[in-house]
Amino acid sequence: MTKTNPGRFFEDYQVGQVIRHAVPRTIAEGERALYHALYPARHALYSSDVFAGDCGLEGSPVDDLLAFHVVFGKTVPDVSLNAVANLGYAEGRWLKPVYPGDTLRSESEVIGIKQNSNGKTGVVYVRTRGFNQTDEVVMEYVRWVMVRKRDVEAPAPQTVLPDLKSALSVEDLVIPESLTFENYDFELAGEPHRWGDYAVGEVIDHVDGVTVEEAEHMLATRLWQNTAKVHFDLTFRPEGRLIYGGHVISMARALSFNGLANAQMIVGLNGGAHANPCFSGDTIKAWSEVLDKAETDVPGVGAIRLRLVATKGGTAGELKGKDGKYLPTVLLDLDYWALMPI
Amino acid sequence: MTKTNPGRFFEDYQVGQVIRHAVPRTIAEGERALYHALYPARHALYSSDVFAGDCGLEGSPVDDLLAFHVVFGKTVPDVSLNAVANLGYAEGRWLKPVYPGDTLRSESEVIGIKQNSNGKTGVVYVRTRGFNQTDEVVMEYVRWVMVRKRDVEAPAPQTVLPDLKSALSVEDLVIPESLTFENYDFELAGEPHRWGDYAVGEVIDHVDGVTVEEAEHMLATRLWQNTAKVHFDLTFRPEGRLIYGGHVISMARALSFNGLANAQMIVGLNGGAHANPCFSGDTIKAWSEVLDKAETDVPGVGAIRLRLVATKGGTAGELKGKDGKYLPTVLLDLDYWALMPI
Amino acid sequence: MTKTNPGRFFEDYQVGQVIRHAVPRTIAEGERALYHALYPARHALYSSDVFAGDCGLEGSPVDDLLAFHVVFGKTVPDVSLNAVANLGYAEGRWLKPVYPGDTLRSESEVIGIKQNSNGKTGVVYVRTRGFNQTDEVVMEYVRWVMVRKRDVEAPAPQTVLPDLKSALSVEDLVIPESLTFENYDFELAGEPHRWGDYAVGEVIDHVDGVTVEEAEHMLATRLWQNTAKVHFDLTFRPEGRLIYGGHVISMARALSFNGLANAQMIVGLNGGAHANPCFSGDTIKAWSEVLDKAETDVPGVGAIRLRLVATKGGTAGELKGKDGKYLPTVLLDLDYWALMPI
Repeated sequence: MTKTNPGRFFEDYQVGQVIRHAVPRTIAEGERALYHALYPARHALYSSDVFAGDCGLEGSPVDDLLAFHVVFGKTVPDVSLNAVANLGYAEGRWLKPVYPGDTLRSESEVIGIKQNSNGKTGVVYVRTRGFNQTDEVVMEYVRWVMVRKRDVEAPAPQTVLPDLKSALSVEDLVIPESLTFENYDFELAGEPHRWGDYAVGEVIDHVDGVTVEEAEHMLATRLWQNTAKVHFDLTFRPEGRLIYGGHVISMARALSFNGLANAQMIVGLNGGAHANPCFSGDTIKAWSEVLDKAETDVPGVGAIRLRLVATKGGTAGELKGKDGKYLPTVLLDLDYWALMPI
Repeated sequence: MTKTNPGRFFEDYQVGQVIRHAVPRTIAEGERALYHALYPARHALYSSDVFAGDCGLEGSPVDDLLAFHVVFGKTVPDVSLNAVANLGYAEGRWLKPVYPGDTLRSESEVIGIKQNSNGKTGVVYVRTRGFNQTDEVVMEYVRWVMVRKRDVEAPAPQTVLPDLKSALSVEDLVIPESLTFENYDFELAGEPHRWGDYAVGEVIDHVDGVTVEEAEHMLATRLWQNTAKVHFDLTFRPEGRLIYGGHVISMARALSFNGLANAQMIVGLNGGAHANPCFSGDTIKAWSEVLDKAETDVPGVGAIRLRLVATKGGTAGELKGKDGKYLPTVLLDLDYWALMPI
Repeated sequence: MTKTNPGRFFEDYQVGQVIRHAVPRTIAEGERALYHALYPARHALYSSDVFAGDCGLEGSPVDDLLAFHVVFGKTVPDVSLNAVANLGYAEGRWLKPVYPGDTLRSESEVIGIKQNSNGKTGVVYVRTRGFNQTDEVVMEYVRWVMVRKRDVEAPAPQTVLPDLKSALSVEDLVIPESLTFENYDFELAGEPHRWGDYAVGEVIDHVDGVTVEEAEHMLATRLWQNTAKVHFDLTFRPEGRLIYGGHVISMARALSFNGLANAQMIVGLNGGAHANPCFSGDTIKAWSEVLDKAETDVPGVGAIRLRLVATKGGTAGELKGKDGKYLPTVLLDLDYWALMPI
């Protein structure tokens, strides 16, 4: 019997099943520093303990996406080792900031399953939760992936499709306890633009770009203990190592500082698509569109719903062709909620 | 109105103006580790808490140049986004060691301004100060840059040229409180050479070299939150990403360990020129020349003034051609004061 | 007189000589994070403070190989700067886990010496010890290197060959104080396979691979303050920068997680050979062979002796050709003891 992990195939999933993922991970100042080396991250709340303290937090948390990557990375050996494609995200929520010293682990519950008509693959929906060392849920999200069948002759399971929100409403969002923007210093944050300065439909070209390198995306992907072969092994994928989609998410979010410096905390993930693959040598740029705005229960804290688009060329605001398909220059189309001073 | 930062143009500067830079940054063990991964840094005071403690400090500070890069990085969006060239440095002083856990921010005061005769650009002089979380100044320096005019028709401002020292005198240098070399362990420090063993005029070939890679200089430059496009975006600069001059400074200083292992702390920056651009694939080597020596008020602590030259070829000691211009192989000519056990 | 380190030549070593190496180094959370970015390291004991605490430790130590690299790196300027080849390792023992905050330094004792018959080189055997800030030995190992003579006419010293064990016995191994696998969580650790599930002679193909990049191995090698020119300077070695053998060791050990996730702690190094050089662009894969098994004094803690082979191609289990020489695809052949839950 082989002792290495062959990964799960479509037949190995049943609705209701809960998978407790290996390997727990303590996040500390090192991971925080590496995040700043890997991405041009400048949001002040994640850069300065003093700034974060002035916002009512106990210190500067690690980037929300760093928490996401760590929680996500643990699911790869159990969920996506034999995945053909990462199809989508929904109902992502950040429930508690992650601080240096916290230890994270992940669990996924299978909430939906559907065999494809070709009989060779199927779609599996999981709700993944990230826990800290005191078993509090720090974040959760739904993702669905297309997985290979081990045996194409195996009978199709009964289709179960989860009822997923197309977008979280502002009531679904969790504002970190004690968060306040009352003493918010716009000058130190880098831009004067408040929640009130953004209009629904507004498109922001973030201008800056980063040409990505093999060493960088591999350092990042390993740091999140994501083991998917396609990111690392050129003999497995001679046409080029595929860059982890989360690397593109973090790069685009960091680039969005220029124009959205005050969209400080990510609290909700409504959906996302990795429209086209990204490779070393590509220059990632980003633009955002304001999709929605809402006030929250916390005075002074506004929620802004943003479409974040990463590209390797093209024009800000252009997303899909006449055929309704993503333009070949679009890498990522992400829909998220962030918190901003009103 | 665009929400992204267009950067300041020459017309946007007035003498006396104080710019409070975004984004504050907490420096911790992660940044210290990355500094050791990015540069072959071996000076013992910055490598070991125990060695630093034996020298009277509360622990090992982060590298003086790390503090410089962080303070400098914050100024880029406000000072050099539209800069044509970084012309010079003067009167740089390290006033207080920066320890893991400290939070840094920067301010710059415009101290000089002069339009160039071509009417298209001008020179701006700023004195930049880095502050820690208790608003103590940890370092300061003057730098001048050539900046584009927004409107070539705009009238020239009155020229103000700051009165800058060509070099700091030993009285200008600040020795960190409680620093002592009384228990200095030369064996652990790596070399037996004391302050008394160096002669003014002496040239030291540091022998070692590092062939630099794109991923490395981008990791470093991002870590200092330096956002200048030229370092990251190959579509912006198709002829090659320009390596941040500070990367060359740190690489050369680290290489200078071999021959100057006991030049522990950098306390003064007299001047510096980035003589030629550096690109990925270049092999950086370094040599130093002893320019001056002085005793300080602290018994056992000597000051040594060094010229640090980074090259991509050429011979140690050769700096300029017959035309008085830097040789094409010279990358950096830096003039600084360091502290050494007498 | 040159102030740079020319390195020791064969004539500079005498049996009994103790070399106290520069530069002490404080290891912290940053080094731990970088280890996870540089290698696909997933062993739970080194990933999670909580998991390590459940195993009776005070927190998650830094990877055993990280400690080895730091201790080893310090010896390079004194032992292997003029080395022609790194010939072997023996009697390596990890005596005490290294925790973030510890400061390491190294000493080597010359325990053997033999001039080669060509009269141009000789072999030097050293026993190196790594000490922490309270002067406890955290690890030790013997290594022998071939070193150039300064003067081929110098007379040969009397040959002294140390009496080295071909392998440590289980009695030689030191189990960290208070280590227990009583509460061991196999699910969180990533695999169900216990000590009892492995058979002597069993070969495990670790399946995964990593295509290595210049920036990565240089970041790693610098982090361990290893200064050997061949790893960094393409003008010194135009045929390609040689990847530090320890980089290959760490990569292979991390890859071995897939099949050996519960071989948690490395406690003994019986021997090792860097069979062929590794260069940027090579794809490192790994396989292991179970060489021996033994119970330890600690109930529930088993020792497993493993051959870890890193390759750049070839088939798991194939090590040497008919000529008795390593296959050209074999990079590393390492023989070590690890601790596993019984």
